[in-house]
Amino acid sequence: MADPVTAAPDGRARAVIENVTPSVDGGRFAAKRIVGERVVVEADCFGDGHDAIACRLLWRREDGLRWHEAPMLAIGNDRWRGSFVAEAVGAYRYSVTAWVDSFLSWRHDFARRVEDEDIRVAALVGAGLIEAAAQRARGEDRERLKGWAAQLRETPEPPILKRLGLDEELAAVADRNPDRRFAATCAVELPLVVDRERARFSTWYEMFPRSASPEPGRHGTFRDCEARLAYIAGMGFDVLYLPPIHPIGRVNRKGRNNALVARSQDVGSPWAIGSAEGGHKSVHTELGTIEDFRSLCASARAHGIEIALDIAFQCAPDHPYVAEHPEWFRWRPDGTVQYAENPPKKYQDIFPFEFDCEEWRALWAELASVIRYWAAEGVRIFRVDNPHTKPFPFWEWAIAELKREHPEAIFLAEAFTRPKVMHRLAKLGFSQSYTYFAWRNTKHELVGYFTELTQGPAREYFRPNLWPNTPDILTEYLQFGGRAAFVARLVLAATLSASYGIYGPAFELQEASPRDPGGEEYLDSEKYQIRHWNLDAPHSLSEFISRLNRARRENPALQSDASLRFFPVDNESLLCYCKATEDLENAVVAVVNLDPHHVQSGWVELDLAALGVDAHTPYQMHDLLSGARFLWSGPRNFVHLDPQRSPAHVFALRRKLRTERNFDYFL
Amino acid sequence: MADPVTAAPDGRARAVIENVTPSVDGGRFAAKRIVGERVVVEADCFGDGHDAIACRLLWRREDGLRWHEAPMLAIGNDRWRGSFVAEAVGAYRYSVTAWVDSFLSWRHDFARRVEDEDIRVAALVGAGLIEAAAQRARGEDRERLKGWAAQLRETPEPPILKRLGLDEELAAVADRNPDRRFAATCAVELPLVVDRERARFSTWYEMFPRSASPEPGRHGTFRDCEARLAYIAGMGFDVLYLPPIHPIGRVNRKGRNNALVARSQDVGSPWAIGSAEGGHKSVHTELGTIEDFRSLCASARAHGIEIALDIAFQCAPDHPYVAEHPEWFRWRPDGTVQYAENPPKKYQDIFPFEFDCEEWRALWAELASVIRYWAAEGVRIFRVDNPHTKPFPFWEWAIAELKREHPEAIFLAEAFTRPKVMHRLAKLGFSQSYTYFAWRNTKHELVGYFTELTQGPAREYFRPNLWPNTPDILTEYLQFGGRAAFVARLVLAATLSASYGIYGPAFELQEASPRDPGGEEYLDSEKYQIRHWNLDAPHSLSEFISRLNRARRENPALQSDASLRFFPVDNESLLCYCKATEDLENAVVAVVNLDPHHVQSGWVELDLAALGVDAHTPYQMHDLLSGARFLWSGPRNFVHLDPQRSPAHVFALRRKLRTERNFDYFL
Repeated sequence: MADPVTAAPDGRARAVIENVTPSVDGGRFAAKRIVGERVVVEADCFGDGHDAIACRLLWRREDGLRWHEAPMLAIGNDRWRGSFVAEAVGAYRYSVTAWVDSFLSWRHDFARRVEDEDIRVAALVGAGLIEAAAQRARGEDRERLKGWAAQLRETPEPPILKRLGLDEELAAVADRNPDRRFAATCAVELPLVVDRERARFSTWYEMFPRSASPEPGRHGTFRDCEARLAYIAGMGFDVLYLPPIHPIGRVNRKGRNNALVARSQDVGSPWAIGSAEGGHKSVHTELGTIEDFRSLCASARAHGIEIALDIAFQCAPDHPYVAEHPEWFRWRPDGTVQYAENPPKKYQDIFPFEFDCEEWRALWAELASVIRYWAAEGVRIFRVDNPHTKPFPFWEWAIAELKREHPEAIFLAEAFTRPKVMHRLAKLGFSQSYTYFAWRNTKHELVGYFTELTQGPAREYFRPNLWPNTPDILTEYLQFGGRAAFVARLVLAATLSASYGIYGPAFELQEASPRDPGGEEYLDSEKYQIRHWNLDAPHSLSEFISRLNRARRENPALQSDASLRFFPVDNESLLCYCKATEDLENAVVAVVNLDPHHVQSGWVELDLAALGVDAHTPYQMHDLLSGARFLWSGPRNFVHLDPQRSPAHVFALRRKLRTERNFDYFL
Repeated sequence: MADPVTAAPDGRARAVIENVTPSVDGGRFAAKRIVGERVVVEADCFGDGHDAIACRLLWRREDGLRWHEAPMLAIGNDRWRGSFVAEAVGAYRYSVTAWVDSFLSWRHDFARRVEDEDIRVAALVGAGLIEAAAQRARGEDRERLKGWAAQLRETPEPPILKRLGLDEELAAVADRNPDRRFAATCAVELPLVVDRERARFSTWYEMFPRSASPEPGRHGTFRDCEARLAYIAGMGFDVLYLPPIHPIGRVNRKGRNNALVARSQDVGSPWAIGSAEGGHKSVHTELGTIEDFRSLCASARAHGIEIALDIAFQCAPDHPYVAEHPEWFRWRPDGTVQYAENPPKKYQDIFPFEFDCEEWRALWAELASVIRYWAAEGVRIFRVDNPHTKPFPFWEWAIAELKREHPEAIFLAEAFTRPKVMHRLAKLGFSQSYTYFAWRNTKHELVGYFTELTQGPAREYFRPNLWPNTPDILTEYLQFGGRAAFVARLVLAATLSASYGIYGPAFELQEASPRDPGGEEYLDSEKYQIRHWNLDAPHSLSEFISRLNRARRENPALQSDASLRFFPVDNESLLCYCKATEDLENAVVAVVNLDPHHVQSGWVELDLAALGVDAHTPYQMHDLLSGARFLWSGPRNFVHLDPQRSPAHVFALRRKLRTERNFDYFL
């Protein structure tokens, strides 16, 4: 054990700093915030005895040498709070420093002195401290402190002395010239990652480009996707995520419905990346050229949409890497490579990389160059396929590498696996994460899961992105629940989380046929074949989706998750929750009927204080889905939801505006 | 940010270790255990993908170089658990190591293979791994592994191959010769302090030696204390704590009842340490000689009692230090030293040390030598006076210093101050801590406070020592509650906590007169004068205390705090809780009437499963205070407590012993 008397910097560092928040695993990982947000930092700071403590929050850009300082104020029970605004996207560090402040201690003590002689002696003590502060000060501060000390030494009358000693303006001057020789500083410089707003608030649409052709039977292209942008933007999406756009392997290519043997006209899975035509840095010729892709990106930008690419680090057997770098794969004694598996799924058309091969440095560098390649093409959002089957240190390094050059990059982790693995990926750098949402259907499940994600430690690092469906996931709830199920799951996704996405057009067209009974794979899945979708079908949810996404854009409450709170309803099939902005200017209350088959009704009980509503004043609940407006009052109100008509309310809460006129306005 | 590819030891270290417990502030401080206890360590360990992980617990003595290993087993949700027995008192370190185990991964995979060719190829892969294990193995292991690999290479029949590959005995041989080149190890070597049993289970009696004389008016001596030992041991105490035994200052000496001016015959406060006769390394001549003190210690040991001394680092104005080391005190401009204060208390007879003076190293060294001096006299228990008014780094250093030489030393922190300060002192090394117990009277207060202490993070480092009274604390509850209040608070102290103490004979004689109305100071406090106590008074609680302490000695359940659980009672004045040994062999249930004035009754609801009692079998509740035995059955039972008779039950729970005979035995 170290000997503080010789080893510690100084035994006179008497202040203690504990329990700094936010903190992810004691500073091993970064907390996450969004540019422009106020970063609030708290710490337990205290010293021995009864002396006064002073505390400062320290912060700097990761690559900056200069620490900035912000004041920290005591908020009770030895807890201190300070904040700074994260003004730029990128990596930051923050810390806390604290010291026993002899001037402040003297001032507290001086205020308590009552006897004349005591006041005179204490004033002399104070004069000494103020002279020392003058030595540390510069310019005007120095002169004012010198003058103050002299007055304290020369004034004979205790009442005047007392007033002089407690002068608030002069105290502030002394306070900004403290003796920090023995300040303690938090042992860890805590990391912070500041992302752009889309990392927190994003609305995703996933689509297979090859199904984008308006002519049935023709392979869709990037140009077809470009023509589809108006439709997607019209629904209010701002991220268009494309499955891999690279050449598709021919060896062991899968046929329709995951058939082990493909027919000659079968198009294969886009995740079986690479063929003689190229690998991860090439585009599939059937989709078009790299120029076509650039044109798509540019048009998307014009529509307010960003293209997100799929990072799937794996190879078809005929990917050029396999021949050029056999050392990156694990060969079996029979000269084959064991194909990829994500039990119970088998990917006979895919070879995994051996990330821990002897030549791992070269492999990692090449894979990082793939991400850099697409970043150079202007792509800033990456949906990463199965990151949990690649080593954690790889992602931590690769994401940091890219974000050093492109701090605005966003990575979405597509890991459907054990909870601690998913959390680790979020901690080590993924900006957003897929979740278990698709399989959380009951009130108990939804409340438990989203309370954990938004109120537990994960709130500092795990940003959920909710998907009611994906090309791999057609849940039983959607298979059997009909339109009401699609609407309910859509509303839940779009309002429980500031980021959500759908796999379309399968979703808006309510595609619900599974390949196998009891399974979650789509029948005639686009993963293995081209599909033609009738976007104009009358049952399409596209108009409803537009309305929902408009509500998200127009209500800042729905653009972050920290404020999510659930309210009691006396019916297990009804889920009620709210989100509100910090200033309570904007508040949204959702009520969802989780039962797609039956009318459900019950009494919801709002926490009016949390919503900033006076208990005795009526308030208006404006349903952003139906347009209806209800006048409510008090915490308990009745709700009735018929799944055949609309299984959900998404209410904007409008408080009464008091006016001089005779009728009410609601804001 | 570091570049893992170049900076990390190896990107192939794929296993992750998170959330190791126990852990106090991420390993900044030591967890505490008792010698002979099994130290259970858990961690989240996992790798990417679907490979198998192996995990080991590492532990060593702080001063030992060799790490010992214990297996860790998966207990679900990627959590692993292992343990070791702390066989000696002293400082330990522990850590966790984990790696992706290629042999175990192969074995899991091999078990799933069904096709003949697949089995043959997989067997060859396994043979390669087993040959590698043979290279790492020695002696017999090596030969067995070589033979196994050869068989796997040569056996042609898949069914035989399969059985051979899954051989459990051979798997164990391979498992103990793993490839740990890329093991990850927890970044922190977590500290652990192993104390002797008395740190966990101790029964304290505080007494002023100067009041120990059997003759009224004569100053008590160490010899008088020796004569008092049989009485103290008879009540079942095992620690006798004496207020400071050093010469008492004459300058500014306090008179009776804290009078600012003492009369010539006044004896002063023992905490005003030091006079011309000596300081912290001397004994007060009126108490006797150092030989008398040694004799007292020896007699105490013979009675099963340890003497605990008071470490009060402060000086009377005439302490030799003041003249010899004026640099250790803070002098005011008028040539005086500001006397000590612990607001609202003022100690005009005491100078505090200036712990952060220029000469702090010399001061700290001298104070550490005081503790060492008494340790050399055989004292191993120190009650530290107001540690919170001295710097935290001082205590962390001084306690570690002494425990390096005397690991069996026990330090009790007498800090009645803000919660975080008290917890910091416990973390940095104090073995036991005074608590807020004296002021926690209602069910709500007691349940909240003791749940926090025994179930929250504090359970790893904060060992409560409960005192219903001290020379400074005569609570209103005791002032107004009469005998029932004394009994109730005694039972609470003795059963809520494995360590407790009383300040006697004031306690057993139910001394209840305050100096000032509304205050907590005793009238005619022994802090300032000699008192004569009639130990044979008929109202003495000594016999009751004996019974209670016998119950503590005979019931291991009462000797630790980790198992404390509260049970519901439908009466706010009745408190019910249990403690049980880990094996549930011994269980104690206490029910206390917190209202000293009225009879209270109600239904208690035991958690029978937690007590190891069958829901449908009667069990016996044996009241260790009254001797009465009740036959209970099921969780809900009725309790009726008359404070005038006995305000508490302390039940030993006796389960039915099934015998062949016709009547019941209870164990």
